[in-house]
Amino acid sequence: MQRENINTEQLLADKAEITAAYEELQGAGLNLDLTRGKPSSEQLDFSTELLSLPGDNFISPSGLDVRNYGVLNGLSELRSLWGNLLGIPADQVIAGDASSLNIMFDLISWSYTFGNNDSPMPWSVEEEVKWICPVPGYDRHHSITELFGCEMLTVPMTSTGPDMDAVRELAKDPAVKGMWTVPIFANPTGVTITREVAQQLAEMETGAPDFRIVWDNAYAVHTLTDEFPEVINVLELAEQAGNPNRFWFMSSTSKITLAGAGVAFFASSKANLDWYGKIANIRGIGPNKVNQLAHLQFFGDDEGVRAIMRKHAGSLAPKFTRVIEILRRRLSQYNVAEWTEPEGGYFISVDLLAGTASRVVELAKEAGVSLTAAGATFPLKQDPQDSNLRLAPSMPTIDQLEVAMNGFATCVLLAAIEKLESDAS
Amino acid sequence: MQRENINTEQLLADKAEITAAYEELQGAGLNLDLTRGKPSSEQLDFSTELLSLPGDNFISPSGLDVRNYGVLNGLSELRSLWGNLLGIPADQVIAGDASSLNIMFDLISWSYTFGNNDSPMPWSVEEEVKWICPVPGYDRHHSITELFGCEMLTVPMTSTGPDMDAVRELAKDPAVKGMWTVPIFANPTGVTITREVAQQLAEMETGAPDFRIVWDNAYAVHTLTDEFPEVINVLELAEQAGNPNRFWFMSSTSKITLAGAGVAFFASSKANLDWYGKIANIRGIGPNKVNQLAHLQFFGDDEGVRAIMRKHAGSLAPKFTRVIEILRRRLSQYNVAEWTEPEGGYFISVDLLAGTASRVVELAKEAGVSLTAAGATFPLKQDPQDSNLRLAPSMPTIDQLEVAMNGFATCVLLAAIEKLESDAS
Repeated sequence: MQRENINTEQLLADKAEITAAYEELQGAGLNLDLTRGKPSSEQLDFSTELLSLPGDNFISPSGLDVRNYGVLNGLSELRSLWGNLLGIPADQVIAGDASSLNIMFDLISWSYTFGNNDSPMPWSVEEEVKWICPVPGYDRHHSITELFGCEMLTVPMTSTGPDMDAVRELAKDPAVKGMWTVPIFANPTGVTITREVAQQLAEMETGAPDFRIVWDNAYAVHTLTDEFPEVINVLELAEQAGNPNRFWFMSSTSKITLAGAGVAFFASSKANLDWYGKIANIRGIGPNKVNQLAHLQFFGDDEGVRAIMRKHAGSLAPKFTRVIEILRRRLSQYNVAEWTEPEGGYFISVDLLAGTASRVVELAKEAGVSLTAAGATFPLKQDPQDSNLRLAPSMPTIDQLEVAMNGFATCVLLAAIEKLESDAS
Repeated sequence: MQRENINTEQLLADKAEITAAYEELQGAGLNLDLTRGKPSSEQLDFSTELLSLPGDNFISPSGLDVRNYGVLNGLSELRSLWGNLLGIPADQVIAGDASSLNIMFDLISWSYTFGNNDSPMPWSVEEEVKWICPVPGYDRHHSITELFGCEMLTVPMTSTGPDMDAVRELAKDPAVKGMWTVPIFANPTGVTITREVAQQLAEMETGAPDFRIVWDNAYAVHTLTDEFPEVINVLELAEQAGNPNRFWFMSSTSKITLAGAGVAFFASSKANLDWYGKIANIRGIGPNKVNQLAHLQFFGDDEGVRAIMRKHAGSLAPKFTRVIEILRRRLSQYNVAEWTEPEGGYFISVDLLAGTASRVVELAKEAGVSLTAAGATFPLKQDPQDSNLRLAPSMPTIDQLEVAMNGFATCVLLAAIEKLESDAS
């Protein structure tokens, strides 16, 4: 948000009213939380049936007793179901335990220790490893590459995906080994990468032969409307472009069935899966197939997944609508913030007057409204503009959201006034 | 097995009979498998109730909704239950996903990449890393240290645990970073480490400040008799000895409830758990707590675990008895093999005339009986004596075991005859 656009006059004129509103907020004894993208109890209830499965029906359709050890790549029927959902052949999809984040961590950890299947050497012995991070992005992505000591290079998100001119330029550097993406309804911008940008990512030249794009499709079916987005088969695009191993495609049921107790999926080229499997087979004997069979029974088929997602949309969409209504009503006239109005996913991204985001979090906290820390959406948790905040509307009830968002708006206005006055003095 | 002890005369006298028995075996069209320590269907049926849990009872006793994200260290009530079972305070036990092997891999992987909490530097930048491997041992242990390029130093197992003179000597080398153990009913020897040896392991001097003993207590309650073994709290012994961080203590329900769909536990000093948690918290958001609550409900308390283990003993003990009966009946008079007669665990370890183990596996395979590969119990899968084989009697029925073990005995005798004749010629 550029300060020259702000309606400073009106903001300062309303200072007394805004200050009074904040004092009232402080007196209200609130304890509200907009920090994390967690499903609400109402949403978790959609999967109550799953909690009694598979019961004594523990033989898979193809005759496998899922209670015993083995089957490193997961239950074939569930891999097929998920492949149908994503438009990817089942033999390019493996089903794991609950967390796709676990798999992403391991992919980078093992590339670091052993090198991946295209690496000239382990990343740990490279002089430096750099990683492209579209911003704002997902904090847990950044934490992984931070842990492994990658230099994180930010590129701005546009309405079609990451700024491709910037990405292409950075990817020429052989030290740049990969890139984070959330291709559909991104965390936190809600942006969906277009087919054109996906194609460019599949085709672009990279300096590193072992360059990987983590295609973290965490919100592939997480629509807030009646429409499901197209899930682009980037594995196919990459293969056609002669870069078959470019994408590590991630997916999970965490925000479909049970957060933290679902099934994660990893889709990729045969060569990538073989490399992963070779190490995974030493790390363990196979994933929890009981939970995989339970999910298979619960979903039935890929249309069953969509049916549940429609229920989630029914629960989440009114919350997003309410948040956006309040942002519009309380902030539009001052032109003091810009926000996304996503059609899916779990977040609304707000850009504030530069230099006020952390102050807004502080003011809100003092009034009992917890927000995700300023900077959280940037590598090293440092937003150079101190401008971006991520709102997560899923957990509170609509009534709580109403209160929390009005409080948030008040804090945004008050922080802006403080900033304008301090700059002027 | 020393060849001078063998009853060569009788063995050669019975050659025609043994050869005929083998030919008959080959003609029988068998397809029997003694390779892996997997529970049988009968054993898995003991936990059928678990497959419908937690149902709609998804709030933990302390009021936690287990369906959502979070709680990195696992469900507190299950940590307490397992702490009671093992005699370890709950705050030194964390509950994870299904596989303790996964945790062991990560502990070594992260020590390699980052160094552990006592490391002067990451193990990856040490000039060399060596690891003590009591033999015969667990193949999947050896595969992990092999993958990370450790030089594996073998020490013999005795009836009280690893040969401590050898261990103490090796541990003085600062390049020796750790040691594998299976302290109770070891894989494959069935040996239980005595309190005296455990004390020595806790107290011994090590050249490396970050030396760790993986105390893989996979069979802590896996008795084949009416008695449960004492579970030694080595964490306490180590603390008293001034080496509080020495042990990584592992446990899991894999062979208690559902193989590959249970709950794994990691117990250690606060400092070790904190170090592990710091990285685990970047790898993911927390373990599958739904499965943890299901286990809590299924067990009730630690006595509930023992009740299930008595059922397992009821199923397994007759199989072990039959195997040992056949080994005695068929092999004793020739003095051609030595075997363990364990009081718990999943395996019988057989030492054969040196140079015949791989031939026995080959002969058995040609007759339709699959045995674990010769050498599997040694690092790099190389048994310098070609003598040790591991039998896993859990999966077949008693009738199948009868056939398979008689076949096995025939192969042992035939291989011994071949060897004696070849040596004589």
